[in-house]
This record gives sequence, structure tokens and C-alpha cells, in this order.
Amino acid sequence: MNDQEAFAIAVEEAKISYKEGGVPIGAALVSRDGKLLGRGHNMRVQKGSAIHHGETAALENSGRLPASAYRGATMYTTTGACILYGVSRVVIGENNTFLGGEAYLKQRGIEVVNMQSKECQDLMEQFIKEKPEVWNEDIGEEERVHSKEKK
Amino acid sequence: MNDQEAFAIAVEEAKISYKEGGVPIGAALVSRDGKLLGRGHNMRVQKGSAIHHGETAALENSGRLPASAYRGATMYTTTGACILYGVSRVVIGENNTFLGGEAYLKQRGIEVVNMQSKECQDLMEQFIKEKPEVWNEDIGEEERVHSKEKK
Repeated sequence: MNDQEAFAIAVEEAKISYKEGGVPIGAALVSRDGKLLGRGHNMRVQKGSAIHHGETAALENSGRLPASAYRGATMYTTTGACILYGVSRVVIGENNTFLGGEAYLKQRGIEVVNMQSKECQDLMEQFIKEKPEVWNEDIGEEERVHSKEKK
Repeated sequence: MNDQEAFAIAVEEAKISYKEGGVPIGAALVSRDGKLLGRGHNMRVQKGSAIHHGETAALENSGRLPASAYRGATMYTTTGACILYGVSRVVIGENNTFLGGEAYLKQRGIEVVNMQSKECQDLMEQFIKEKPEVWNEDIGEEERVHSKEKK
């Protein structure tokens, strides 16, 4: 599937949403070898959903995929791109197991507070030890587990 | 509700997810006047969902809210913060009606292609004209509609 074909699917999704009375933003996620992984449209009106934007709906409809599936993939979206909610402040339990978008949040003027919670870190370390494959799937390729050797 | 109380809810959600066999990340969204708007946890395993992370699950469970509800709100999350999928390339229909996270995507090394689609722009303009209240709810406070006066 080439750019034009994939983009046409995103536009089709936008039109479906419009006909449903919803926000007309559609998206399609295509793998690096040109296979359609998922398609979807904004569902704010239809589902009363704050998180089913065009892109996230396409991601959701792609199902659970290993991080490798997203690598090299292309997201086609009819309008804009990104999820921004305007939340002013973010409190995180810890950032040792996962270095999230802290820099990005701060850069956008969002206050970030780190609780440095041992309980949260222990819970994550326990989980990662038990199910490393789910954790790797969850964080994607770009994030790295900061292995903190316990001595 | 103060920080400790709200954070305790996020931790509780993380533990619920862990007991369910899921990724133990929980979150709580609290309004600027200390009211719990929503709580939730990662549902990758439970729902086979790629978009129900801790924070997004809390946002989803908060339901449809006007942009003003997010202003001054705080997101409490047990681990990390942000949604990153590792998609390499994003194709957008247009960026006239909505200036999305293009700069952010580019900054992360993601290739951004703008199709400059008149069809997409027309569709959005039609929708915004018809349902400005839904559009304003959808984009949040921080984004601005770039009013393109048609002459």
C-alpha cells in the first residue's frame, strides 16, 4: 500500500465519522512493508471518548502488537497529529524503570513532580521480572528499561 | 483531595492491574479544585489495548469533558508519563485547521509529511462551522483553530 492509498483510507475514516455526527478526523497505521495494521476515526461523540482520537483509534484497532511492528510504520491522519489534553501538572510515582515524556511535558510548561515511590518501583521491577515480554511490548522500542541492579 | 490521596488512588489502580495480570501502571486525574475526575490503569493485557495506558485510561474514564476541565488539572501516574509508540513516520492531511504536535514529532526524529489536502481542510471547516462546541471540546485549550477567512 502506497501513501496515496493509505491516506485515502484515513480520509474515508474521517468521512465515516462525519456521517456519524462525530469529529471528522480519520487515520490509518501502515507497517513498513506497506500492510494496513489498523484504521479508525475520532470517537469523542460516538463513544463519549476522550482518548479515541484519529491516530489512537487506528492504534487501538491495530490491536496488541510487539514494539517491532511500530518501527518503520507510518501513521496517516487527516488533520493535525498528537494528543494534548491541556493538563497542567503531572505527578509520577518514579522514573527509574521508565523514562517517560518528562522532558516533553516540562518543555510544554507542564509541572512534573516525582514522588520517588519505592512501592511503585518495586511493583514495576517485580512485574518486569515476571513478564518481560509484556513490558517490552508495552514500552515500545524507543524506551529503555533502566536496569537498576539490586545489590 | 491532596497529592498524597490522589497518588494513593493511582497506586491502588496499579495494584489492581497487577492482580489482573496486567501492566501495573495506574493513574488518577484530579481537577484543579481537588475533585477526582477519573482513575484507571494500563489495559494492554486485559483489553488487548494499545492505547489504554495508565494516564489515557484515567482520561477515558473521566469521560467527555470540556477543555476547561483539564486546565489546572493534575495527572497522577505511578510510573513514567507519556505515550510513545515508536511509529517512524506520520502523514497528515493538512495542518491549517489544527496545528498538532508536528514540532514534537520532528524533534523525536519522526518524519512528518503534509499532504496539504483541500478535501481534509474543507471537511474540518464544515464540521467546525456546524459544531464548534464539539471541536473546542476536542482540541482542548492549548490548541487554537487557525481561522482561515474564506474570501
